[in-house]
Amino acid sequence: MKQFTSVKDVANPKELVQKALELKKNPYAHKQLGLNRTLGLLFFNSSLRTRMSSQKAAANLGMNVMVMNVTQDSWQIEMEDGVLMDGGKAEHIREAAAVMGQYCDILGVRSFPGLEDREADYQEVILNAFIKHSGVPVVSLESATLHPLQSLADLITIAEYQQTARPKVVLTWAPHVKALPQAVSNSFSEWIQHADVDFSIVQPKGFELSEAFTGSAPVLYDQKEAFEGADFIYVKNWSSYKNYGAVGEARDWVVNQEKLAVTNQAKVMHCLPVRRNVVIADDVLDSESSIVIPQAGNRVYSAQIVLKEILGNL
Amino acid sequence: MKQFTSVKDVANPKELVQKALELKKNPYAHKQLGLNRTLGLLFFNSSLRTRMSSQKAAANLGMNVMVMNVTQDSWQIEMEDGVLMDGGKAEHIREAAAVMGQYCDILGVRSFPGLEDREADYQEVILNAFIKHSGVPVVSLESATLHPLQSLADLITIAEYQQTARPKVVLTWAPHVKALPQAVSNSFSEWIQHADVDFSIVQPKGFELSEAFTGSAPVLYDQKEAFEGADFIYVKNWSSYKNYGAVGEARDWVVNQEKLAVTNQAKVMHCLPVRRNVVIADDVLDSESSIVIPQAGNRVYSAQIVLKEILGNL
Amino acid sequence: MKQFTSVKDVANPKELVQKALELKKNPYAHKQLGLNRTLGLLFFNSSLRTRMSSQKAAANLGMNVMVMNVTQDSWQIEMEDGVLMDGGKAEHIREAAAVMGQYCDILGVRSFPGLEDREADYQEVILNAFIKHSGVPVVSLESATLHPLQSLADLITIAEYQQTARPKVVLTWAPHVKALPQAVSNSFSEWIQHADVDFSIVQPKGFELSEAFTGSAPVLYDQKEAFEGADFIYVKNWSSYKNYGAVGEARDWVVNQEKLAVTNQAKVMHCLPVRRNVVIADDVLDSESSIVIPQAGNRVYSAQIVLKEILGNL
Repeated sequence: MKQFTSVKDVANPKELVQKALELKKNPYAHKQLGLNRTLGLLFFNSSLRTRMSSQKAAANLGMNVMVMNVTQDSWQIEMEDGVLMDGGKAEHIREAAAVMGQYCDILGVRSFPGLEDREADYQEVILNAFIKHSGVPVVSLESATLHPLQSLADLITIAEYQQTARPKVVLTWAPHVKALPQAVSNSFSEWIQHADVDFSIVQPKGFELSEAFTGSAPVLYDQKEAFEGADFIYVKNWSSYKNYGAVGEARDWVVNQEKLAVTNQAKVMHCLPVRRNVVIADDVLDSESSIVIPQAGNRVYSAQIVLKEILGNL
Repeated sequence: MKQFTSVKDVANPKELVQKALELKKNPYAHKQLGLNRTLGLLFFNSSLRTRMSSQKAAANLGMNVMVMNVTQDSWQIEMEDGVLMDGGKAEHIREAAAVMGQYCDILGVRSFPGLEDREADYQEVILNAFIKHSGVPVVSLESATLHPLQSLADLITIAEYQQTARPKVVLTWAPHVKALPQAVSNSFSEWIQHADVDFSIVQPKGFELSEAFTGSAPVLYDQKEAFEGADFIYVKNWSSYKNYGAVGEARDWVVNQEKLAVTNQAKVMHCLPVRRNVVIADDVLDSESSIVIPQAGNRVYSAQIVLKEILGNL
Repeated sequence: MKQFTSVKDVANPKELVQKALELKKNPYAHKQLGLNRTLGLLFFNSSLRTRMSSQKAAANLGMNVMVMNVTQDSWQIEMEDGVLMDGGKAEHIREAAAVMGQYCDILGVRSFPGLEDREADYQEVILNAFIKHSGVPVVSLESATLHPLQSLADLITIAEYQQTARPKVVLTWAPHVKALPQAVSNSFSEWIQHADVDFSIVQPKGFELSEAFTGSAPVLYDQKEAFEGADFIYVKNWSSYKNYGAVGEARDWVVNQEKLAVTNQAKVMHCLPVRRNVVIADDVLDSESSIVIPQAGNRVYSAQIVLKEILGNL
């Protein structure tokens, strides 16, 4: 593996899930692999799970880790080429990325979308600038449009919890109070189509995801119909792709125990953080239905298998 | 030891002090103990000594350390159960704590009181939420009402500097310009009663600490009388417990060399940070009377013995 | 080496450059030297290169590293002696420095000038307070007036790229939009005079550096004349020393390819961050003329040789 920014960077996603499950049995077996190797984790946005699980994964591999909250620890970075830098931005991404590439063997980058200009967000300016200018392998820690480390953890979790050879997996939109990226949902839609599952997506009218990621997955509009017989319910809010960035507040889309009644005792997943009783009700999160905590725990092994594959290729 | 949030978590405080003194002689002898173990340090409030001494202690034991400034690095966390999370808080402590417990073998948590609602502060909501939901041992890095790592370091320091079998130790209130927690003073009062000392507390009327912590210790109101023959003067400001959070500005309570005249060449202690000439005068801090720097140095060994005991129990 | 705050702390600067070049060939050869040694990196100001390169250098030597953004992670620190600390500052530098010295074997300190009071800035209050009160070796991570880790990296870079035994090196002022310190330029002027080069400085009238640092170096005012036959052009903005802190916006001083025509195919250097098209034009930074990226890369080896020399002396 040479970089990790989407499922397209992975030759065989199914095999990667199996490798992660193997790694999880013996996470400290490869501490020599990361010896004298440095991982730089660059956060243009807040992070809890990604920050901690990536650090832990790198430590498990014996790597040195350096964490930067880019705008807090240093300064504003100019992303546009050819500009006269006489404003508030002190450094250009061309230098910033190249310099970090001098200090790190692998760079992880988190950069959220602005959710105002769809075309700009979907161009993935920051992530691509690091790929272009850093000279080292880049791992997405959630970009404007995708969150592949999350999706890989999701597939690992489904593999661990599935009771049937071909479970039914439903990605359901849920309400929120602010505009959230489509990244987790885009990415899950891409990845899950590489697993042996029946996958469908359900959301209100106007909240359909880009077909570039949902591909041939059935797109439904009736949550109850979608949930029937489901083995896994993946809950996530996203703001509108069509009416870009619009917030969906349809509170009746909250996922609660009552709605799970029609499922096949579905396990409920969410990438976290989750707003309780807005997105998922307490009666689900505090029940056996929820597997959000072990799902978050698997972020360590998704990060670790990715770092291991990249280290093996350096 | 299964957690470390007050002296009540310690089977034998005197023995723990002796173990810490042993450890200090050979601090790198147990680097295998922390191998592949991760300490998460979570700061809801600022920290200098606790931050650095805990990192150092963990490194001495061969542990991996991850530091989070919770609100800077991630987001606001909801502490209340059963609420509809449609406000400014993005994640519930139930998930945050449980997830951190997936990534860390031990969690250290710093969380100060608000000093407005006594009952709420003394319930230790944040610390208890981590204990309840993280699933891993929790170490207090100073909670709303106690600072046991500081108190253990204090007892280590007294053991190192005491000239007599049963020294006289006085905890004296000192003035300040803002409302400070009672945590250090509560905690010192609890711990010191497990040492072979004569202990008393002196403060102005209205600034008495909770008897839950001071127990049977004599409570005096005349600083000069209290200081007579003292071997150790522990100086600390705290805001009022009775008139909860009220600031005490009685400037004549500052500790200076003149006041030390009646002591038995007392050593002066303070947990730091200390406001010079408000709490303690320059003529004390810059003299041989002060042991505040080695006292701060002992924070490494108080943290290290606690981590070592917990690691040994995992 | 006992500290590293200016070229004056180095017995033999030329030899140090050679040692750094040796170290670069085999950077992981001395990992035992830093075992159980802790480096504290204290940032009173933002940092990207210094932060990452110092962490990397310390890791290469097997050291434990603790990073503090002083004002974000802890609180405001009082620098003045003898004051009544009843304002906004919670801790005095005397305690803060001494305590950090308890936890760290070496302290790195970054502290920029205010650029309002020249005398105060040039007294290096913060750096000197750490030297005086910490009790451990101090490394400047850029002080108010000097940036010796940068200058050492600059000399390493010139040694790598020089084509002749005695290259011509020109330090040129360039425009900017805000007041920048003189530190990099002062420091480069001092250090370069210990190398076998012909060195001169060129700037507009009123932007001459202090002679305390430029010594006997020719001081020119015509950029074109200065550039003739140059092998290295070191570009840097600095605010006025004479009219202290005044910003120079003379945009015609920008360094572009056209101006390089009269040089001996000069290599262009800059400490970064650089504002493109204000300080240096895209046509230089994106060409073979620029060596700013490997120059930044050498920050690892300048920090590493300094730490190695100090560790060897502990």
